[in-house]
Amino acid sequence: MFIVIVGCGRVGSSLARTMLKEGHDVSCLDEDPEAHARLEIGSDKAWEDQGGQFTVGAALEVEALTAAGIEKADVFVASTNGDNTNIVIAQIAKRKFNVPNVIARILDPLRAEWYERQGVHTISPTRIAIEQLEGEVRVAAQRAAGGAPRQGAADHEDDEV
Amino acid sequence: MFIVIVGCGRVGSSLARTMLKEGHDVSCLDEDPEAHARLEIGSDKAWEDQGGQFTVGAALEVEALTAAGIEKADVFVASTNGDNTNIVIAQIAKRKFNVPNVIARILDPLRAEWYERQGVHTISPTRIAIEQLEGEVRVAAQRAAGGAPRQGAADHEDDEV
Repeated sequence: MFIVIVGCGRVGSSLARTMLKEGHDVSCLDEDPEAHARLEIGSDKAWEDQGGQFTVGAALEVEALTAAGIEKADVFVASTNGDNTNIVIAQIAKRKFNVPNVIARILDPLRAEWYERQGVHTISPTRIAIEQLEGEVRVAAQRAAGGAPRQGAADHEDDEV
Repeated sequence: MFIVIVGCGRVGSSLARTMLKEGHDVSCLDEDPEAHARLEIGSDKAWEDQGGQFTVGAALEVEALTAAGIEKADVFVASTNGDNTNIVIAQIAKRKFNVPNVIARILDPLRAEWYERQGVHTISPTRIAIEQLEGEVRVAAQRAAGGAPRQGAADHEDDEV
């Protein structure tokens, strides 16, 4: 399967490395040439020698997307640091290039929800972080309800009496 | 239960609103007075009128943490935008103030893993995003393996022959 990933930061590069290891063809696009180094973390071979592709170019330029291979992508992942950019290129991938699987990373959970309803498949790390923290705090609350009272809190309450 | 949340951005404020609604006492600390507005999203009552507490101050100043109520916290959540700040204040909460439940949001997944091993409970939205994207791409791969080939890809392969 041919996977095009735009935005080769922590998330994009990690996904790229994993997917290449799992036997897929992977092409990354980033405007920063130095992002290439992230693709070689944990490997002693060059990204290209492992079979990967890397293109330097602006996410919003169709020429750059074409150079990265968007026309033959089976999966397109928009994972730049900009929510707006991710939304726009996800729509280009879907509507102009008919990529069958398009996923956009959207930090703003409200926008992620809105675009999800518009048919753009989104991943929102922010929403996930909120949900995870809520879960953790609820677990702590249950533990506190069943266990000994917090010592500091007890001291403080004594002070207030 | 008394929850202190430092960093009242999207994640911190959303967590604060949910936990207040669930009946907990919630105190937020942020250096930006305007962060307060996030606590009132979706409510027609002032945060304080709902029973919430908000303190303006720097996360790394013990006076500010004390004003926010760290001494009697049952749960302490470090969710500023800075990984280093979150690590430092999580350790202050744990070691200096003996808060029984301390959670730090760490964007860098490698650091999150390292600190987790050091006993700091961490949440890494970046790691979660990577795992979610990997899952999505694997699902797409299975779908592609079982279904019709990508039309654009087929065209392209014809071109190459």
